[in-house]
Amino acid sequence: MPTVTVLGTSAALPAHGRHLSATLVQWGARTVLLDCGEGTQFRLMDAGVSAARLDLVCLTHWHGDHAFGLPGLLSTVALQGRTAPLVLAGPDGLAEALNAWPGIHLDGLPFSLDLRLWPHDGCRATDGRFDVWKDETLVVTARPLDHRVPTMGYRLEDAPRPGNLDADKARALGVTDFRDFRRLKAGHDVTTPEGKRVRSTDVVTPRPPPRAFAYALDTAPCDGARLLARNADLVLHDATFSDEWTARAAETGHSTARQAAEVAAAAGAKRLLLTHFSARHERSAPLVAEARSVFLNTDAAEELCPYVLD
Amino acid sequence: MPTVTVLGTSAALPAHGRHLSATLVQWGARTVLLDCGEGTQFRLMDAGVSAARLDLVCLTHWHGDHAFGLPGLLSTVALQGRTAPLVLAGPDGLAEALNAWPGIHLDGLPFSLDLRLWPHDGCRATDGRFDVWKDETLVVTARPLDHRVPTMGYRLEDAPRPGNLDADKARALGVTDFRDFRRLKAGHDVTTPEGKRVRSTDVVTPRPPPRAFAYALDTAPCDGARLLARNADLVLHDATFSDEWTARAAETGHSTARQAAEVAAAAGAKRLLLTHFSARHERSAPLVAEARSVFLNTDAAEELCPYVLD
Repeated sequence: MPTVTVLGTSAALPAHGRHLSATLVQWGARTVLLDCGEGTQFRLMDAGVSAARLDLVCLTHWHGDHAFGLPGLLSTVALQGRTAPLVLAGPDGLAEALNAWPGIHLDGLPFSLDLRLWPHDGCRATDGRFDVWKDETLVVTARPLDHRVPTMGYRLEDAPRPGNLDADKARALGVTDFRDFRRLKAGHDVTTPEGKRVRSTDVVTPRPPPRAFAYALDTAPCDGARLLARNADLVLHDATFSDEWTARAAETGHSTARQAAEVAAAAGAKRLLLTHFSARHERSAPLVAEARSVFLNTDAAEELCPYVLD
Repeated sequence: MPTVTVLGTSAALPAHGRHLSATLVQWGARTVLLDCGEGTQFRLMDAGVSAARLDLVCLTHWHGDHAFGLPGLLSTVALQGRTAPLVLAGPDGLAEALNAWPGIHLDGLPFSLDLRLWPHDGCRATDGRFDVWKDETLVVTARPLDHRVPTMGYRLEDAPRPGNLDADKARALGVTDFRDFRRLKAGHDVTTPEGKRVRSTDVVTPRPPPRAFAYALDTAPCDGARLLARNADLVLHDATFSDEWTARAAETGHSTARQAAEVAAAAGAKRLLLTHFSARHERSAPLVAEARSVFLNTDAAEELCPYVLD
């Protein structure tokens, strides 16, 4: 089952025992890290996951509380002797920024970085969808959010999965060729040796809907977040402030907990987790209460607690 | 009393519960940070010290395990609203490296950085001494060490302190003018109104020797480390490896615990703390035993334990 583990829930500053932004997603055999605030390599250790196992790292934007852990993470992975390529998604210019620090040089790593860099304008000029990753089990896409600097959120979802073929029923309808069974499962209709037409939909259950997780921070409420969260099983959304600070949220390109709930509701999401709490909110309970008045299935993300998409 | 608190004792990788290199020194009213590996801002919180209180930050070299915490530390200090200048000592090029990361720009900080940058060759061309800080209580100097990249170690010591004036004795010898009391305390001889010569050394106790702390990592055993550690009350020295790895220590520009002890002994230091332990050494006790065979007053630095210079 896909599992989401939030490694840090603090905005800007580490406070009240919260850590800086980073979220681990394990999806089948794939291990994905979303954002990489300072200390993320230690939080991965706390979660019992070796940084060397990561397949994909996605940055949302340049701000330090989401990115300053990346040089150290890459250094540690290098020291652990990784040779397999690592896919790194983020803003254009990422390689240059990493190379500018004398303690690390990408050419000196024992593994290659497969960079998937979105334009620094955050794809605002296009429909905004940026394809990050696709394999037989996982599809990752990015969409622009609304923050003070170009920022992209991410959606992880199942690759399209075929429905189940009822082989007995197909045989009863006269299908005998093994290639016809394959065609039916893949969604195609076939004709039996006796000339009878058998429709795929007669013998194959409908495709299961893809499970989806949306990661929308840092951002004000926006279309990009709603698109990422469309029918998602789980949404992790910026909820930096309580209602009282709504104006401050707008000024700084963040959301209130209530606004996060409005995004989840508009998107038809199933469950919402709030994160990126301002240091001024020592307790998250009041924010959860404000959000639940709009979208009941809301909780504050708990660090290191595995949330399972089933 | 000057107090040294080691925040991280791990080499390269965080391992076995150890953290990356950083050491806090509180010297009278001054607060100094030596090195700033990733996570140092969290370790300062663990030590109960606000990063906003720092007066001086000294980097030894560019390697990430000593420096990757600096952008986050500066960002946090900025968010805390500091306006007082911060003195930052390190290799030439430090400002450019910090500015290359889009998440931070030194011109955008609410406080100014007073940079004390040593030449990138580590002062090898001169006698090697680089003056970092001097005020009425604390003097900080740097000297080149022997590592794979230009590296400087640091010595913190008391500013010269006058001895105590025995005012009764001076009066008995005929001194009456308050200015003469000041002159005597400052080390000058005076003549009384009756024409009698009074020597400073007759009425002032000798200057107390300055208390000193030496910080010598990352380095192979070298003259610079011995000069930093000269008669020091406390020396924190690179002890990455055990005897078994002596060749590896030489290859990588590090020291064995025994070599650290040899430096402390040659320098006439009073006490040695070992640090920067390789992840291959889960236990430090064998390294301490090897070092004590050369220099008895040796311990493994214990993170967050305050060591007092009295």
